[in-house]
Amino acid sequence: MEELSKNKIKYIKSLSQKKYRKVEKHYVAEGAKIIEDLIQADHKIGVIYATPEAYHKLISASQNKNITLIETSQKSIDKASHLTTPSNAIALMPISSKKFHVDILRDKFTIALDNIQDPGNLGTIIRIADWFGIDNIICSKDTVDVFNNKVIQSTMGAIARVEVYYEDLHKVIEEAKHDHIDVFGTFLNGKNIYTIDLPKQGIIVMGNEGKGISESIENLITEKITIPSFRQEKCSESLNVAMATSIICSEFKRR
Amino acid sequence: MEELSKNKIKYIKSLSQKKYRKVEKHYVAEGAKIIEDLIQADHKIGVIYATPEAYHKLISASQNKNITLIETSQKSIDKASHLTTPSNAIALMPISSKKFHVDILRDKFTIALDNIQDPGNLGTIIRIADWFGIDNIICSKDTVDVFNNKVIQSTMGAIARVEVYYEDLHKVIEEAKHDHIDVFGTFLNGKNIYTIDLPKQGIIVMGNEGKGISESIENLITEKITIPSFRQEKCSESLNVAMATSIICSEFKRR
Repeated sequence: MEELSKNKIKYIKSLSQKKYRKVEKHYVAEGAKIIEDLIQADHKIGVIYATPEAYHKLISASQNKNITLIETSQKSIDKASHLTTPSNAIALMPISSKKFHVDILRDKFTIALDNIQDPGNLGTIIRIADWFGIDNIICSKDTVDVFNNKVIQSTMGAIARVEVYYEDLHKVIEEAKHDHIDVFGTFLNGKNIYTIDLPKQGIIVMGNEGKGISESIENLITEKITIPSFRQEKCSESLNVAMATSIICSEFKRR
Repeated sequence: MEELSKNKIKYIKSLSQKKYRKVEKHYVAEGAKIIEDLIQADHKIGVIYATPEAYHKLISASQNKNITLIETSQKSIDKASHLTTPSNAIALMPISSKKFHVDILRDKFTIALDNIQDPGNLGTIIRIADWFGIDNIICSKDTVDVFNNKVIQSTMGAIARVEVYYEDLHKVIEEAKHDHIDVFGTFLNGKNIYTIDLPKQGIIVMGNEGKGISESIENLITEKITIPSFRQEKCSESLNVAMATSIICSEFKRR
């Protein structure tokens, strides 16, 4: 068993900040469960530091996978962890430099996020995408960072199976439209999602928690949709973005 | 303008604890928006303490409604508030003593919650119920208290329109079955929710975040349902309970 050095702990801790993740091109995933999912989905993994208990859980999963698995003490993990309740394992994950190409939008549904700010919402939306077999999420550059530890942990491992890109949303949507891919967005005055015809491919844009879809993106939407409320009287202003995403994905995928 | 006395502040603060809510039969709702929703839905309201700004928002809504609206300082509100970011208004709300009767289950859908523990999940489920026009939620007695300030605030006013009961879930479901009302529950081995026939009335049981529906309630379920995953490979263990509730309510209500 190896204790983590002060410098190593400092390095791991530094990755809780976006600016250091950007420089080091690594992020941190914590907990044997999420790390196992990342291994199974063939993600590149730098090093895993694990308590004896987690080490034994991860040893068989990481065999023949070119992964460095190091047994360390809970005390070392406690010092390096980004979480208020420290986990049992810490993986240093290279940030993928996978480039977006419009081809990935063809013959499938893709979620686009326009300035989502809450880490919990982004994490939940990644879980929904995973459940409904949506492979890619395109985030506007001002959307919260997916490598934020709150996002990673709230995906419960779904991050291993869903690719998240940060792109100029404008440009992506314009390229998609050029390729005759429909672009859907939710608006209060949109068409009833339960009764409109839905295609087999398209981009589903979800907007910011408070402000919705930005005006410049709204202008690019080809089909405005709405989830109708079943209450006659005045109702909550809107469903939150994660609930709306789950209902919309359910409708698009069930047909 | 009237400053809140020390005793008044102490009393309001005490209502953040369930044991005092039980004795005093009052709970606290905060923020002009939620309070306005409660007024509009004709909830009984004891007293509202509001900052000058909130006072002016609430004055017309509360006219002819037998509501005591008192203007106070932000400083007083800050001292009495249950929130980390204090609101602009505090309402003392009598806890309704509405008794459950099996009649409320007829000809409509009702959500039953079996030991939901997270205040945010309960709040979100109340918003979903509101959106889909579901009037009543029956909670098992071990479900988190709806009058918890985290629940009240996360309902965003939906609490004004959805009635929440705490009952012996066993007894309620047995009475419902006696009245030929179907009882649905989500299980991994349930029938595909997208393809089964759904009636126009019924109880939808949602289970605890970690453990799902308890065994004793499972035995009373008349129809086991499931939300199928659209991913072929291994997937996240499950959708969280709030996402699952939104998808199920969407399916039940759209037909």
